[in-house]
This record gives sequence, C-alpha cells and structure tokens, in this order.
Amino acid sequence: MSKTYNFYAGPAILPQDVMKKAQNELLDFNHMGLSIMEISHRSKEFTEVIETAETKLRDLLNIPEDYSVLFLQGGASTQFAMIPMNLLQGGTADYINTGAWAKKAIKEAKLFGNVHIAASSEDREFSYIPDRFQFSTDAAYVHLTSNETIGGIQFQTFPDTGDVPLVVDMSSDILSRRLDITRFGLIYAGAQKNMGPAGVTLVIIHRDLIEASADNLTSMLSYRLHAEKKSLYNTPPCFAIYIVKLVLEWIEGLGGLAAVEAFNNEKAAMLYDTIDHSRLYRGTAAEADRSKMNVTFRLSSEDLEAKFIAEAKQAGFVGLKGHRSVGGCRASIYNAMPLEGVKALVEFMRAFEKDNA
Amino acid sequence: MSKTYNFYAGPAILPQDVMKKAQNELLDFNHMGLSIMEISHRSKEFTEVIETAETKLRDLLNIPEDYSVLFLQGGASTQFAMIPMNLLQGGTADYINTGAWAKKAIKEAKLFGNVHIAASSEDREFSYIPDRFQFSTDAAYVHLTSNETIGGIQFQTFPDTGDVPLVVDMSSDILSRRLDITRFGLIYAGAQKNMGPAGVTLVIIHRDLIEASADNLTSMLSYRLHAEKKSLYNTPPCFAIYIVKLVLEWIEGLGGLAAVEAFNNEKAAMLYDTIDHSRLYRGTAAEADRSKMNVTFRLSSEDLEAKFIAEAKQAGFVGLKGHRSVGGCRASIYNAMPLEGVKALVEFMRAFEKDNA
Repeated sequence: MSKTYNFYAGPAILPQDVMKKAQNELLDFNHMGLSIMEISHRSKEFTEVIETAETKLRDLLNIPEDYSVLFLQGGASTQFAMIPMNLLQGGTADYINTGAWAKKAIKEAKLFGNVHIAASSEDREFSYIPDRFQFSTDAAYVHLTSNETIGGIQFQTFPDTGDVPLVVDMSSDILSRRLDITRFGLIYAGAQKNMGPAGVTLVIIHRDLIEASADNLTSMLSYRLHAEKKSLYNTPPCFAIYIVKLVLEWIEGLGGLAAVEAFNNEKAAMLYDTIDHSRLYRGTAAEADRSKMNVTFRLSSEDLEAKFIAEAKQAGFVGLKGHRSVGGCRASIYNAMPLEGVKALVEFMRAFEKDNA
Repeated sequence: MSKTYNFYAGPAILPQDVMKKAQNELLDFNHMGLSIMEISHRSKEFTEVIETAETKLRDLLNIPEDYSVLFLQGGASTQFAMIPMNLLQGGTADYINTGAWAKKAIKEAKLFGNVHIAASSEDREFSYIPDRFQFSTDAAYVHLTSNETIGGIQFQTFPDTGDVPLVVDMSSDILSRRLDITRFGLIYAGAQKNMGPAGVTLVIIHRDLIEASADNLTSMLSYRLHAEKKSLYNTPPCFAIYIVKLVLEWIEGLGGLAAVEAFNNEKAAMLYDTIDHSRLYRGTAAEADRSKMNVTFRLSSEDLEAKFIAEAKQAGFVGLKGHRSVGGCRASIYNAMPLEGVKALVEFMRAFEKDNA
C-alpha cells in the first residue's frame, strides 16, 4: 500500500483538490506573476481573497448581518484569553468542563474574573458530555467546547442559555455540520482541523458583544478594533486565509454543510460500528456523546495498542496514536477524510483483529 | 515585458528558489505522502523543521546560547503589547520615535507603564534618525524601530544603552545585514519582509529578560511560557515556519549575512545613485539615514507620481506606490529582490525621466 491516510488530530488532512489548486498557483496567483504569499494584504487581489472567504463562510453557515466574521492569529489558545478580556471584565462567567481544551479555557478565564463551573465530566475522565447545568444568575456568558479531540466527545445539541450569550470553542468541529448561528454569542475556531492550515483563527461574534466589550484593551486583543478594521488592522496571515477560502469553495462544491454533515455521519457510523461489533476494540466515549470528528478507542493492552499503531502506520494509516495525555488510539476523521480512507481503516482494523484474536 | 518585479513593502517578494521548492513538495513533504500543512506540529518531521529553522537562525545571526529564539503569532503588533506586558510592569521605558511603527509601539506601551520619548524625528516628518538621546536613569528598556518602511529611514548603528536592555523592532530589516546580537536584550520581527510569509513572528530574547518578566500573564502572552515550551505551547503556524526555514537555507546558500549585506548595499546604492543624479526624482530621507530596504522618493507633482506608478506597473514593476499615509513613491528592495530587478527599475526610471523632462 503506497497511499497515506492521514488521521492526525490537527494540523490535519486537507482536501486534495485544495492542495492541488494551491500548488498550481503557488508561483503565479491570479495571473500576477507573483505568489499569494508575496502580495500586499491591502492589494485588491488579497482584498478579494479575504472578502470571498468571509462571504462563503456567511453563506455556508448562514451567518446573519449582525455578526462580525474575523480572521485572527494565535489559535484558540489566544481566544481563551481574549474572550474574558473582552467580555468578562471582572464579572462571572459559566464554563462547562468537558476535557483538556475546556480546562485550558477555564484556566485563562480565571485571570480575568470569576469562573463558575456549570457542569463537568471530569468525574468519569471526560468520557461524556454533561446534560445538567447549574448556570449562574448573572453570568456574562456561558462557555463550552463543542468537541473535545482528546476524549472524543461532542455536544450533539447545545444547552439553552436563555439571554446569556453562548460562547463556543468549535476548533475541532466547525463546518462539520449545520448550525443555527443565532443561538451563539461568539464562536471561535483554530483553522487547523476542518478549515485550513494552522495560523489563522476564525471568530464569529455578535455585534452586541462587540459593543459591550472592554474598551481599554491593547489593540491586538480587542474584538472591537479587529471588527472595525475587518481583520486588517495589521498584516493578517494571508496564505492561511487564502487556503481557508479554497476549503470553503470546496465545501460549497460538495453541496454545503447538509451534505458534509451526512457524509461525516456516515464515516463516523462506519468506524463506531466496527468498534461496537468487535471484541478487540473498545470505544472510550459515552455512546450518545461520541464525536463525529475524533473516534477514540482502546485495545486490551498498551502493548497491543502499540502494535496496532505501528502496523497501521506501516500500512499507510498515520496519526492513529491517542493524545499523549490519555494514550490509546484515535482516528480523526475531519471533513477532508474521504470515505475510502475510513473504509480502508475499517478493513485494516478487522484484519488486525483476526490476526490478534 | 512579461516579468513582474515585486517592490511591495510587505508582504513582499520571496526568493524564487524557495517558492519553487515549496511548490515541488507541497503535496508530498519529506516523502510522507502528505503536505507539510497536514502534519502534526508534534510529529518528528515538523519538529525537525522548527529545530532546523532555529539552528540556521542561530548560525546566521550568531545568536549566543543565553538567548531564546521564539516563533510566535500576531505580528510585530502583538509584540508592541507583549514587550511592555512582560518587561515594563508599571515602570518606565524609553522609546525612540522614528515613524508610524515606533508610534504604534509607543501607543501600546502606554497602556502598561510610563513611556519616555528619548528622541524623536517627528519634527521633520520622520525623515531622519535622531542621533542624540535623552535616556531615563531608571528605564526598564530602550525601544527603537531599526527600519521605518514608510519614511524610508534606518538605524545604521545602534545607540549605546549601557546596562539597559535594547529592544528592537527589526520587522523590516532582519537578516538584511550582520548584527552583534549581544548588544540587544530583545529583537522581534514579523516574517513578511525578509524572512517568510505573514503569519509568524520571530522573537530573540535574552534569558535574563525572560527570568525578570511578569509571571501573572495569560499563557499566550508570556515569553517565559513560549521559551519553556520552545514555541510549541499551542499549534504554531507550521507552514509559515517551514517557509522561514527554506528562506534561511537560501540565505546560507548565498554565503550568509556578510554576502547579503554587501548585495543589499549594492542594490540600494544603485537606486539612490539614480535618484541623486536625476532632476525628476527626489529622495525623502536624510542621506545618512537612508534605508537599504525601502527607498522612498517623490516626483515634482502628485500627478506625475501617479503617472510614474501607473506606467511602471504597466511595465511589470508592482508595489511602487508610497504608503497611503505619506504618498509619493517607494521601492522596497528586500533580500529576495534580485539585482536584475533593481537594474530594470533604474533603466525604467531613467527612460521615464527622459520622457517627462
């Protein structure tokens, strides 16, 4: 087998068509005789790229006019701080603790105000999504992580937070399914799973939150400024934004998010079905909360897991090692993973089970 | 003329050899069957990329062991805040005001402590580099901008700040000449002029400054944390770092910074000489302080400038318009601009002068 199937959790697989287009025009963007990396972020050619990216995103996610779409730097980790810096201002925010990513967000928020844990699944090693929440009466916002890449759990529906803005880290499942944007105050996502390469972070924020945000912040940490400047206060990560634009066009070509969602459901079902019908593999996430993006599973021993990962790699399946903090195995099957890749993995898993029964 | 010569101020021209190599391996990095954009930042393949980038940089700039080399996000604009957040802590810092970039750094620093302006060239529209400085007795650091892209002025030598750490924004001239790193406490630079694409920011910081830095900062704004984690606290901008690595290898191939410096001096001399021997073009920067990176000049009227820029573009010379805040013309001739490009521009300028005398 010469083909490589990429199951990395992130940076992760990107659509082959996108990579090929990027390669084709890498030395000559838009017949300019220059690379997209070599042109001014204020040129009309790059302006068209970033504006098209925003328009496509608004179309695909049906983002209303009263939300700003920002392309920032620093990853979700920078958002962990920017959110409380802009929105908390010494008040209280409710956080739902579902794993390592939620915990990182909580840790940073505590530097800027009071954090109330409205629910947690830490009691069972973050293997499920809580369904009961104790929200504060005066929270500035409620924060949650829609998909935890390490535990392999995902919110299938979102809690009703009433008038309190819901702030969601969607780094690992943005654009993987349909969303009702009006239910959220702020959505953020590092690009490097479903959207593009590492180095650009998407923020979708309701204008009410921008208006209410702190006004004494340093420029680069102010949502207000980035919204006013349409993500061009300083030089943005132009190449990463260009790839995001290509990925959005690719999603559009697939038929939009309804098609992507159906496709992702099919891929995840195929893998979970294999796990559920096996005596060798054991899923780690509660069935109702299983992630459609990161399928986590264990084998009967760490030795066997190591053997599985090594033989899989040999056969062309890379990135199947679970996160170093929890061990085990993980197959990340983001949008760009073709059905063929999941089928091939499932066949490999069955053959490995037969050989190691 | 079909060739395009790229005189953009940034994002700017990159070496053709680098772009070609990136194109060749865009779909298949290191025989992995994957793009460099698609692999984990913790994979051994990417680890080698970031470690090689650091090693090459240390070699080229002769960076001693007691400095950390960081690859961060957010551009120089984020450093404008990170520097005072980490190093000022309510104290006083001396800033030298030489133009728009210095002013931006000053504006952000004021949010975090006292700023004393040790010198300024604002009295003559930032057309020169001050040579007399009134340093504070108790400054936490002295900050300056080594090259101002808008005014086209550049520090040819650096002021002696004694025991006070010298902090320098080298975004637009890093790697353009030799440096004695030991004279600096902290050097920072957005990549998008001489080093790579927009989206990665280099910080070279002495370990004494890291040790003395604030310890109550949010993770992503802490030099201490980024140094401890070797720029891998969160997912770094992998592709941009990869291109930086290729650019550093290209510089190495040219013969290192001594060769690059000689080459840059030759290109700048050719352009300034053309300007000085013309009746049509007039340099805007004080002769002793002229930038080797951004050659700024005016013509006798704005109409003629517009005509010059339009005809130049027609002839394949792009990016010659001066910054929107000052107007006029500007030829940015970073490392990757070949001698041939400057020669062609000089010939065009002479022909234009003849036609418009």
